[in-house]
Amino acid sequence: MLRVSLLSLLALGYGCVTPAPLDPLPAVAQVLDAQQQAWNRGDLKAFMHAGYLQSTELTFFSGTETTSGFAEVLRRYQRSYGDQGKQMGELAFSALETFALGPRAALARGRWRLSLPNGEEPNGLFSLILLETGDGWRIIHDHTSSAD
Amino acid sequence: MLRVSLLSLLALGYGCVTPAPLDPLPAVAQVLDAQQQAWNRGDLKAFMHAGYLQSTELTFFSGTETTSGFAEVLRRYQRSYGDQGKQMGELAFSALETFALGPRAALARGRWRLSLPNGEEPNGLFSLILLETGDGWRIIHDHTSSAD
Repeated sequence: MLRVSLLSLLALGYGCVTPAPLDPLPAVAQVLDAQQQAWNRGDLKAFMHAGYLQSTELTFFSGTETTSGFAEVLRRYQRSYGDQGKQMGELAFSALETFALGPRAALARGRWRLSLPNGEEPNGLFSLILLETGDGWRIIHDHTSSAD
Repeated sequence: MLRVSLLSLLALGYGCVTPAPLDPLPAVAQVLDAQQQAWNRGDLKAFMHAGYLQSTELTFFSGTETTSGFAEVLRRYQRSYGDQGKQMGELAFSALETFALGPRAALARGRWRLSLPNGEEPNGLFSLILLETGDGWRIIHDHTSSAD
């Protein structure tokens, strides 16, 4: 019922745009699925290109650290997982929810878990802002957290 | 230059809606300012009502923990800061950036720092999704992180 009232509220002035705000977006879920598959075949660059906007405006928030720009975000992943002697492990997303925020912006949120070869299983939450680029949905802002 | 090209890209099909995506939104910054002021006069309920959507759809992500619904988010703050013998300290936001994501949705992100009476200074990052409700902008999703 609340969903209906929120939608009604937000539908004001929305006559000319689709999808409606807070609608789920399967196309966004597909982007995350492509990212997960790229990670799990060990292809960090494909993981980046499948999901992230190739832009200096891309931002990545994790813990207390901010990273800006596609190239820097890639370097951050490479330092953490892609350097010689490190392994990427198995990435799994769960509890994924997607929401339209406007005609060309979306929120995706859920849980991530990484099963590393050494037995560690870092995990936490993510909130992603995606934009529809014409070449599909891409993340422009990623906020990731793990155990405090 | 990139900002211009992104805006051009996103402006397709956007003829009937304002503001343009990624535009800054002073009204959203004002909401966070009102929250900060309410916190710093020790009024947790005013802090909640100034910023958060009073809805069961409100979500709060922190570390690995998710909290759903206005009442539960309030209880979480009360347990952490509002119980007898606990003090709320001084809250400061910094590096605040706001972006329109559509005609009625916005992203606000930045840093938070809490200066507690015991000298501790927990701090970290936040990413907020806000909706324009008719009664002003309110947070529907809050992702907060601190040191991992």
